Amino acid sequence: MIPDSLNQLIESFKILPGVGEKSAERYAYAILDLDEDLVSQFASSVENIKDSIQRCSICNSITDKNICSICSDKTRENNALFVVDDPKNVFLFEKLNMFNGKYHVLNGLIDPLEGINPEDIGIDSLIKRIEDEDFKEIIFALKPSIEGETTSLYIKKILDGMNVKITRLASGVPIGADMEYIDSLTLERALSDRKEV
Amino acid sequence: MIPDSLNQLIESFKILPGVGEKSAERYAYAILDLDEDLVSQFASSVENIKDSIQRCSICNSITDKNICSICSDKTRENNALFVVDDPKNVFLFEKLNMFNGKYHVLNGLIDPLEGINPEDIGIDSLIKRIEDEDFKEIIFALKPSIEGETTSLYIKKILDGMNVKITRLASGVPIGADMEYIDSLTLERALSDRKEV
Repeated sequence: MIPDSLNQLIESFKILPGVGEKSAERYAYAILDLDEDLVSQFASSVENIKDSIQRCSICNSITDKNICSICSDKTRENNALFVVDDPKNVFLFEKLNMFNGKYHVLNGLIDPLEGINPEDIGIDSLIKRIEDEDFKEIIFALKPSIEGETTSLYIKKILDGMNVKITRLASGVPIGADMEYIDSLTLERALSDRKEV
Repeated sequence: MIPDSLNQLIESFKILPGVGEKSAERYAYAILDLDEDLVSQFASSVENIKDSIQRCSICNSITDKNICSICSDKTRENNALFVVDDPKNVFLFEKLNMFNGKYHVLNGLIDPLEGINPEDIGIDSLIKRIEDEDFKEIIFALKPSIEGETTSLYIKKILDGMNVKITRLASGVPIGADMEYIDSLTLERALSDRKEV
């Protein structure tokens, strides 16, 4: 009943995270209502993304050049390295505008149950970079989970003996959160990480 | 900071209804994570939609043929005509599988304040179709609003004297609501309770 091409567009939108039948239909009809030019622009922005985006050969972040804009920025400090497990978190922290050092992106976290081992997430190149460059501090901003913990402890062990400070983002109760909705693991961590007022 | 092509993709998604910065970013990163094939498929489903979709030359619904599958379906009854103001509502009512007649799609509703006059929404071709074909009943399923009311009254006036029953969906559809978000029970009730205009 619904034309095939419209059905295909609806199915395409359903690939997106959190998009069900209703939203997909809504998006598809919105595309139908757009000017031809805008539709072409939309389509090419999707089509081109995979060709134009690559991983930075230094930090593994996503970029449209061989070396990303942060790694090639001479005004950024070289003393601290921010380690994240997902490239989008680089942009997340950059938006906050509170860190002026360098980044390194792991390809996820160590997760033995899922068969993800240290060699799968690019720990080698992180270690090599830390050995080659002269960072004073490595800051882990990994997902606060068992896997994040495992990954940071694993890397810390390898770096043992090197003259570099290793820190992680504080875990705790999010600002503005209702205490009763916080899980016990977070509360425990918030207690053990408590700071003098 | 964020690569241009990624920014463009995020901006593209922000065109969609109800999609803000956060969702657009989420969708864009999801596209980045897809296989090349799926991305191309997504892009071409967007690119092709405008070329493949046209308006049915009989009922003005959207279709990928000259005459839509409902108008060309010989098994459908010719006694009742369902008049909607948006092509997607044809599919909406078809999904409910409770009407076996024909449809006619207006290009919106009369709205003098917005400068939308009867000639802008294709009332002429609706009238011509009613004159040419042999419908026993015209069922208005227009948006329950002042504009919907105005439009159905305007058409009723033109049809005055013709031997055809004119009805509209019963209220039960909340005023000001978007038709696509109404639950099917309410829609069914609205159809069975339809009242003569």
